[in-house]
Amino acid sequence: MTIEIYLVRHGLAGQFGEYEDDSMRPLTEDGMKKTHRVAKRLGELGLSFDRILTSPYQRAYQTAQILQEAGLSTSIDTLDTLQPGGDQAITIESVSQIRSEDLRVAIVGHEPDLSQLASTLIIGHSCENLTLKKAGIIGLSAPIEGELIGHCQLFWLTPPRLLLT
Amino acid sequence: MTIEIYLVRHGLAGQFGEYEDDSMRPLTEDGMKKTHRVAKRLGELGLSFDRILTSPYQRAYQTAQILQEAGLSTSIDTLDTLQPGGDQAITIESVSQIRSEDLRVAIVGHEPDLSQLASTLIIGHSCENLTLKKAGIIGLSAPIEGELIGHCQLFWLTPPRLLLT
Repeated sequence: MTIEIYLVRHGLAGQFGEYEDDSMRPLTEDGMKKTHRVAKRLGELGLSFDRILTSPYQRAYQTAQILQEAGLSTSIDTLDTLQPGGDQAITIESVSQIRSEDLRVAIVGHEPDLSQLASTLIIGHSCENLTLKKAGIIGLSAPIEGELIGHCQLFWLTPPRLLLT
Repeated sequence: MTIEIYLVRHGLAGQFGEYEDDSMRPLTEDGMKKTHRVAKRLGELGLSFDRILTSPYQRAYQTAQILQEAGLSTSIDTLDTLQPGGDQAITIESVSQIRSEDLRVAIVGHEPDLSQLASTLIIGHSCENLTLKKAGIIGLSAPIEGELIGHCQLFWLTPPRLLLT
């Protein structure tokens, strides 16, 4: 038995440095629009999530809210280790602990953290050669029991431009 | 400067064992239809290829022909090392030698060979944790010069079900 883990990078946000507190930097209007289109497309493809775990940063939380508004999930929880540079071992342990039959969980966060998390789950160590664009998505199939690190299957990785027409 | 390498798995084919010579096993009618839909969708997404390299096996060659018929490429060449179990070092050398500015090459073949080829190009060694479904696609960005192995960026991996509505 497996579960599915979707890693979603936040949409296009304002320029780094525009906000004194980077955690408050919001999505731009274009970022909101494109993220809405991505969320709509995920629904058309039949996807939904039992829960969303998100970085508490504004641009990530807004992205999670857009997924929720599109009807893809009823639950959003923040997870502090999804902040940029957060401790990935704790993130992985958090996901490990909520595993249940047929769980589909979406994790919303930042780069390079998410692609490093993905490569750790797939190959057992961090790798720089996965490209995750803003509002892009990675889909992993993971075992319901036992070790997650190095035991997840990559079945999807897409930038918005190859998802939207 | 980079080139793009697309790995395309052949569509749904007849049952293994139905043909005495497995290399002659063709796509099923459903396999033809779905592969046509995938090819059409690739066109809608603005993709095309400068050339297609394919396994000489019937089910792969037919897949390459469907890509060509959809207007995605004018050139199909067979490459013997794209047969199941073929020598991947020779495949990689063949791709390496045809590199030119902005080249987009599609490689049509079999599993588990293509996902092993992809993981070798991305992380430097073969890995079993990439799932490439029939008529599924992997997209890699590769350097135009120097070593390919371990130096390619994965920017796309999709099964048909997450490509087609």
